[in-house]
Amino acid sequence: MSDALVVGLDIGATATRAAVASVTGQRLGTGRGGGGNPTSRGAQVAAGQLRLALSTALATVDPSRVLAAAMGLAGGARLLADPASRTAFDAVWREAGLRCPYTVISDALVAYASGTPAPDGTVLIAGTGAIAAQVRALRLDRVADGHGWLLGDAGSGFWLGREAVRRTLADLDAGRAPTGVSDLVLNALLGSAPPGPPGRATVDALVQAVNRRPPIDLAALAPLVMRAIENGDPRAADIVGDAARLLVETAARIRPAGQATPIVLGGGLLTAPTPLAAAVNEACRTRWPDAPRVRAGDGAAAAAWLAARALPEVADPVALHRTLIPR
Amino acid sequence: MSDALVVGLDIGATATRAAVASVTGQRLGTGRGGGGNPTSRGAQVAAGQLRLALSTALATVDPSRVLAAAMGLAGGARLLADPASRTAFDAVWREAGLRCPYTVISDALVAYASGTPAPDGTVLIAGTGAIAAQVRALRLDRVADGHGWLLGDAGSGFWLGREAVRRTLADLDAGRAPTGVSDLVLNALLGSAPPGPPGRATVDALVQAVNRRPPIDLAALAPLVMRAIENGDPRAADIVGDAARLLVETAARIRPAGQATPIVLGGGLLTAPTPLAAAVNEACRTRWPDAPRVRAGDGAAAAAWLAARALPEVADPVALHRTLIPR
Repeated sequence: MSDALVVGLDIGATATRAAVASVTGQRLGTGRGGGGNPTSRGAQVAAGQLRLALSTALATVDPSRVLAAAMGLAGGARLLADPASRTAFDAVWREAGLRCPYTVISDALVAYASGTPAPDGTVLIAGTGAIAAQVRALRLDRVADGHGWLLGDAGSGFWLGREAVRRTLADLDAGRAPTGVSDLVLNALLGSAPPGPPGRATVDALVQAVNRRPPIDLAALAPLVMRAIENGDPRAADIVGDAARLLVETAARIRPAGQATPIVLGGGLLTAPTPLAAAVNEACRTRWPDAPRVRAGDGAAAAAWLAARALPEVADPVALHRTLIPR
Repeated sequence: MSDALVVGLDIGATATRAAVASVTGQRLGTGRGGGGNPTSRGAQVAAGQLRLALSTALATVDPSRVLAAAMGLAGGARLLADPASRTAFDAVWREAGLRCPYTVISDALVAYASGTPAPDGTVLIAGTGAIAAQVRALRLDRVADGHGWLLGDAGSGFWLGREAVRRTLADLDAGRAPTGVSDLVLNALLGSAPPGPPGRATVDALVQAVNRRPPIDLAALAPLVMRAIENGDPRAADIVGDAARLLVETAARIRPAGQATPIVLGGGLLTAPTPLAAAVNEACRTRWPDAPRVRAGDGAAAAAWLAARALPEVADPVALHRTLIPR
């Protein structure tokens, strides 16, 4: 029985990660590919990254021993609805020698399970975008935000970057010398500062520099806000405070007051030790004082755990979680 | 001397308006064409609308009597920088039999002058976008916002429409039945309400409906916010209160506290009797209690006045303003 294996996949916009483990919690292989989201990358490119990650992870094991697999993907259910992506992924699956089926689940559920084995709780994610979800019996129940940069993603990396440019423009409009985060934004987007005191020409150049690129690229400015805080800029701290408040309000749309189930914090801005992560952690503690707060961990291992826990070979899923997902 | 005429043009994204007047304040002709902004419509289309408006306005006068002309245009100075637009506009000018030169000025200055002949003051405009400007000696001095929908236009029609959709999405996320402005937004974007209680499928449909169209189309939802206020929706009133606050903050970036010069309110959302116009008027009264607040009026006539006031034939520009621009 201990010969049984599971496969977990965490497929994101910038990386595809695979993990192979035994049902006793032994990690037997990992693999990594580039961005594998078929919606944003196209079915063939995405399938190629899946092949790369899978073949590396399975290099030293017999794939016929894999009994269960789960694949976390942004908008998981939509992959199933698109025949071209499903066909391409199925072909990679067979090529890899895998005989078991795979389930496609939301990347938010994977992030949740990477932080806790508790059946019920909340996951709050802030990366380029932002989303919160209630989990019930280890399934996604209700979701808040995740509405994209134009209408939502409040408190996300995109939101932080846009806010940083907005404050810079407000400085320039008001004739204030750009300091702190405004200074970093001007340097990042316009290179060396234009000659003379900044005026309307600088405003126009800044607006044009942003509008020349896809709006989502504003998310690349989020680290400047964090750096400005380290440099002691109080206005950057205001931006991050607003972002933390918005993120916690997003979670509060779906999570009742006083709830004591765990809150998992995921996404690049909340898993790294950023000022935003600290502010969100503190705001969650204030709002839900009885709830444990944990950072999201290894997504591919979490997907493998989600696949494994339903197998009859797994007597104690909580113990397996502890072994499989190092904290 | 009283034979001298002036021409004024107010060229916007949706309409081109021309006015011909004598320097004694007699209105002798008006004309109208479609959107004439060469940046958004292209030089040839814009020139065609200019031709249409000008030929109607000049139908009953001898164009050689026109001694001065001014043309208000969003981003006025940029027209001068684009040779194709300048060439096309110059050709229309000669065809119309006009021999005097024309000056290109900002549409914000035209809006200002349509409200007051005072040399110094502020204009605050909210239509699809939003901008404020300080006027000094009847020239644009400093400008705030006007940064476009992605980075600015705080409190504009775009901002109101996006905010209305955001609140609707927050309702749906939280499982609240959509009422007031949320109900109007759902009906406008999704037609008849989807069957059953609104859930994540409605959220996805709403996000997709917005993302299928250019972002600026969100401005078309601004009237729904006004209608919801008339229907007694307190949350729509909150949105408009926030918009008014943002617009007045934009003006405050460039207008010192305590200033008593006039404030001209322009743009479709502030010249019509909307709840936003009332809220902005009140917020300006609170912030600058000694400043007269006036609505923008006839832009083409204001451009004609700006052209006329420098002529030696005009002894009393303030009296001419009173005659030329009916309030």
